[in-house]
Amino acid sequence: MFIEYFPLVAGLLGLLCAWMVYRMVCSNAAGTGKAKEIADAIQLGSMVFIRQEYTVLSFFLLLVFFILGLLIDWRTALAFLVGSACSGLTGLIGMHAATRANIRTAVAAHEKGSTQAFTIALFGGSVMGLVVASIGIIGLGGIFWLFKDDPEALKSLNGFGMGASIVALFARVGGGIYTKSADIGADLVGKIEAGIPEDDPRNPGVIADNVGDNVGDVAGMGADIFESYCSSIIAAIAIASSMSLLSLETDQPREVFMFLPLVLSGVGILASIFGIALVRMLSNGTAVIALRVGVLSAIILFILFSWIVTDYLMLSPEIWGTIVAGSLGSAIIGLVTEYYTEQGPVKRVAEAGTTGPATVIIAGLALGMRSTVIPIVAIGAIIYFSTSLAGLYGVALAAVGMLATVGIVMAIDAYGPIVDNAGGIAEMAEMGKETREITDNLDALGNTTAAIGKGFSIGAASIAALAVISAYVETVSQHNEHFSLQLSDPMVLIGLFVGGMLPFLFTAQTMTAVGEAAGEMIVEIRRQFHEIDGLLEGKAKPDYARCTAIATNAALKRMVLPGLMTIISPIVIGFALGPMALGGMLAGALLVGVLLALTMSTAGGAWDNAKKYVERGHLGGKSSEAHKACVVGDTVGDPFKDTSGPSLNILIKVLAMVSLIIAPYLV
Amino acid sequence: MFIEYFPLVAGLLGLLCAWMVYRMVCSNAAGTGKAKEIADAIQLGSMVFIRQEYTVLSFFLLLVFFILGLLIDWRTALAFLVGSACSGLTGLIGMHAATRANIRTAVAAHEKGSTQAFTIALFGGSVMGLVVASIGIIGLGGIFWLFKDDPEALKSLNGFGMGASIVALFARVGGGIYTKSADIGADLVGKIEAGIPEDDPRNPGVIADNVGDNVGDVAGMGADIFESYCSSIIAAIAIASSMSLLSLETDQPREVFMFLPLVLSGVGILASIFGIALVRMLSNGTAVIALRVGVLSAIILFILFSWIVTDYLMLSPEIWGTIVAGSLGSAIIGLVTEYYTEQGPVKRVAEAGTTGPATVIIAGLALGMRSTVIPIVAIGAIIYFSTSLAGLYGVALAAVGMLATVGIVMAIDAYGPIVDNAGGIAEMAEMGKETREITDNLDALGNTTAAIGKGFSIGAASIAALAVISAYVETVSQHNEHFSLQLSDPMVLIGLFVGGMLPFLFTAQTMTAVGEAAGEMIVEIRRQFHEIDGLLEGKAKPDYARCTAIATNAALKRMVLPGLMTIISPIVIGFALGPMALGGMLAGALLVGVLLALTMSTAGGAWDNAKKYVERGHLGGKSSEAHKACVVGDTVGDPFKDTSGPSLNILIKVLAMVSLIIAPYLV
Repeated sequence: MFIEYFPLVAGLLGLLCAWMVYRMVCSNAAGTGKAKEIADAIQLGSMVFIRQEYTVLSFFLLLVFFILGLLIDWRTALAFLVGSACSGLTGLIGMHAATRANIRTAVAAHEKGSTQAFTIALFGGSVMGLVVASIGIIGLGGIFWLFKDDPEALKSLNGFGMGASIVALFARVGGGIYTKSADIGADLVGKIEAGIPEDDPRNPGVIADNVGDNVGDVAGMGADIFESYCSSIIAAIAIASSMSLLSLETDQPREVFMFLPLVLSGVGILASIFGIALVRMLSNGTAVIALRVGVLSAIILFILFSWIVTDYLMLSPEIWGTIVAGSLGSAIIGLVTEYYTEQGPVKRVAEAGTTGPATVIIAGLALGMRSTVIPIVAIGAIIYFSTSLAGLYGVALAAVGMLATVGIVMAIDAYGPIVDNAGGIAEMAEMGKETREITDNLDALGNTTAAIGKGFSIGAASIAALAVISAYVETVSQHNEHFSLQLSDPMVLIGLFVGGMLPFLFTAQTMTAVGEAAGEMIVEIRRQFHEIDGLLEGKAKPDYARCTAIATNAALKRMVLPGLMTIISPIVIGFALGPMALGGMLAGALLVGVLLALTMSTAGGAWDNAKKYVERGHLGGKSSEAHKACVVGDTVGDPFKDTSGPSLNILIKVLAMVSLIIAPYLV
Repeated sequence: MFIEYFPLVAGLLGLLCAWMVYRMVCSNAAGTGKAKEIADAIQLGSMVFIRQEYTVLSFFLLLVFFILGLLIDWRTALAFLVGSACSGLTGLIGMHAATRANIRTAVAAHEKGSTQAFTIALFGGSVMGLVVASIGIIGLGGIFWLFKDDPEALKSLNGFGMGASIVALFARVGGGIYTKSADIGADLVGKIEAGIPEDDPRNPGVIADNVGDNVGDVAGMGADIFESYCSSIIAAIAIASSMSLLSLETDQPREVFMFLPLVLSGVGILASIFGIALVRMLSNGTAVIALRVGVLSAIILFILFSWIVTDYLMLSPEIWGTIVAGSLGSAIIGLVTEYYTEQGPVKRVAEAGTTGPATVIIAGLALGMRSTVIPIVAIGAIIYFSTSLAGLYGVALAAVGMLATVGIVMAIDAYGPIVDNAGGIAEMAEMGKETREITDNLDALGNTTAAIGKGFSIGAASIAALAVISAYVETVSQHNEHFSLQLSDPMVLIGLFVGGMLPFLFTAQTMTAVGEAAGEMIVEIRRQFHEIDGLLEGKAKPDYARCTAIATNAALKRMVLPGLMTIISPIVIGFALGPMALGGMLAGALLVGVLLALTMSTAGGAWDNAKKYVERGHLGGKSSEAHKACVVGDTVGDPFKDTSGPSLNILIKVLAMVSLIIAPYLV
């Protein structure tokens, strides 16, 4: 039957498209002279970071591999290694493509104009998007084929998920600390102390700043979404393998329900390819409309295709309904996040700048907190519809539906750092004002896509985590028939409190880490300005490599504590206080993590755009008091939106995934 | 039997002591000339605000009275009115005493020295502390006597609690908005634009600023703590009246368990009187040590007394254990909050000021978030010990134990705004540098007591709310045997998410309200500086009354929306989504509310003290870059620690209390 091979075929097709798109990117002019030099430095710095990060990680992964092998089983341990390798591979490929697309975008903007530059950046991001989806489906599909007739062996899928989780955790946290410490360090010393513009090649931290965009916003984000994508599929399969079919009133065998998530994800890849092609076709018009039409068309196409699939598999319309709930929910959350980082709301934050930085901070925080309302209602609605249509399985399927179109969402998300880099290269290589204008316009669009992407990744993470938590509850219930998560049970309540506290502690740790790492960068950049003669006059070259090395070490050193805390917490709570406390902990961490992540991402985005709003000449323009006030907001927002906020997604998912792995062993 | 009358006797004794202490305060010199004029203006402004606030409130209270009477019963409705009247009365008496103590503290500092000034301020605060406890126990005790043989009628206690809740809600929110809008308005225009020092009589907003301390930190705080105090007792009685006695393995009749909370609260009043006397006796030495010894002695004495009481009533040592858990837990939370707003941590926040305001904000937020860890563990420990010793009843009893010594805790808490006011009066009446030095030293101590008080009020609110939530669960279970709060139930989960979102929305609303109200103050103060000739030269008098009127209106107008939202949310969720969703909502709001309140209170306190640390000459002292940066932190911290943070306590309590009232009517 063709459909049995469909996920694999879709995955391979996705990889093929990614390869074609990558070739198209590479076929463009790669620049020469100074531009090439700079691009090479960024590429090298990114690869050095990733290599060192993976080296640090590999020891830890091997350790976990042996622990899993000895305590659980070697199948799970092996799947764990495969999962982490797949996650690492997607990050590597995505970043490889992004660091090739950035220079070519800059050159195209210089030589061929806006449309061609847009296309290259979009295609550069599409490589990441398609690879995330394809490798995910091939990896999971492979394990599914191997073990589909042996439910016990199929549990090794959880190992795959945990591998993806742990790589994503360190990639997000490490990348997040790197990107913001480099950004803040370069800005504070370069722009404020030395008085040179952003992306000025005389600034020793400027390469590290551009490297940061790649390791944080491309590799980190990719690993995060890859994890959500895989864990939603894994949770759906896990729940399907153990749920009661009676409640679904179905005649179809259990295997169909287990297989459905993979088919849907395959459908999502096709829809994404279509969407990307559509954006490309429309890119002669207004780019922002092209992007929106592309994403929405992909979602609609996916919803239509999945109707055909559920109908073909003779599943009830209810099942299809859960998929729709997930897809629409993710679109709503993305659009709300965008709304709060655009126009009206941002203007109010900027206007608060006329009475100083304190009011900017208060306005931004209030905005961020307020922005949680609609997404929380949307999440509530997704839970309501999906569970009333198909129980816990419905939640997992909603998550799958939400993440199926990851190919295009991730593509437009990775577009952002590519054009950001292209702008940096254009500035440093002195490609002229016109080029810079094109890249600036593309970059402004990137801020919008980043906002949508952040909302999407938080929404996806929350529903994916919820699906994994549901799988945890199912698993524990199988081993312990008295298991229940009564909120009136003191253990559940204690777990809830501890779980809610974790996102606060984690945020404190990651924000402090950015501050400390930025401090190290500041010392080094100051040193170079002092010690290298003729640097400010442009007669001598700064030592970029030293700055990237310092940012790399600072980030890698500081990702360990929050990372380990995240992995160890569920183990300690689970074995010390039992599975009920652990269940409470997961709920608490999910709730608080989602709220904090939404607040921090939106507030950070709004501050960034408020600064840009003033810079466009409003409220006195650059160097006005309002601008100074908004710069403070933007700096506070940096770790909010690019380090702590997004890392919270992966915090809640790792907690859930580790809990699922240890679930059968909790008394 | 004497013990039957003991709570009433203790309450009357408390009132007697409060009256004696008040007479002692009044027996001191009340100042003359300019000082008296200023004190009178502050007194008048405070009373005008309270009168208007109560007027606005009385319409609303009457409305609720009729609704309760028509839908529930007239007994409950009447108890509701009594509860709100008691709460209003304590606020009025406490503020009356505070606005008399402030001028006398200033005069004593000027004429008699530090010890006498300290005593007057302490006694001024003690009036509030003793009145809160005494009126609480007399009001609740009275209803208990009336209805103790009729369980159905005894439910009208809930009405009393709801009355106290609603008054506290508006007093906290309205007072919080008033105090910070006046503070920010006076500071921004006076200190920064006009360049005159703090508390300068030429500043038109200076009286409003001092009024704010009284209406926010005395009346608002008092109503908040009064509510916690009453609701812990109410919850304990409610649980005792319906719990299964089998689980407690006791021979004692149910009445003893219902009566115990009142006896314990009576014991707490005695212990508080002893503690206040001890502080007075030790006040010749170091004041901070006197305060600490006084509070700790009162707690220890209470623990010993309650051993005697439980032994006399022939209750098991387990019951006593829950009381100890509550008392010690509150002490730990208070001390942790103090630690994070002192020395080491504050120094690090101040040092972040050397790299600008953004790093101050990040450091303070990280500090606030980190400060949640130990209190959350303490709350977890209280839940663990109290429930394992005596089930849900144990939680309520722990809350009673925590709040029993409210007399002294509230006394040292209200001490803060009194010395703050005294300093303002000394400055405005030009009492000289030496007087100001004494009041400054007393004020620094007030910051410490405020930190302890804030930690205490959050801890107390959380355990009291938990007790009320437990009573809610008990009540719903009685009417609906299938009721359960399974976290895996979608309705509970949706409720949890909505509940968690409420504190974020509420915080956004209250922070925005402060910003807007401060904006109105700024406009008026600027106008007066422009339009009143000779104001800056000291030749003309500003129009203080207009500023207090504007602050009053601005605060009253803006307290309505967050207040109504809080009251309506549980009703909407309860009737639209059912009791399970409402239960989830309460848990979500409690969790997130406690975390946010702790973070905001600690961060706000740390920013305030970081500014003061720099002002003492560190890191370049006043007018350095670090100082400017810390001023930004302090301004952000103002609504954090005095408006939004403390209002969150009452948010979670009102949600719980309203839910308890409607519990029997939910299907």
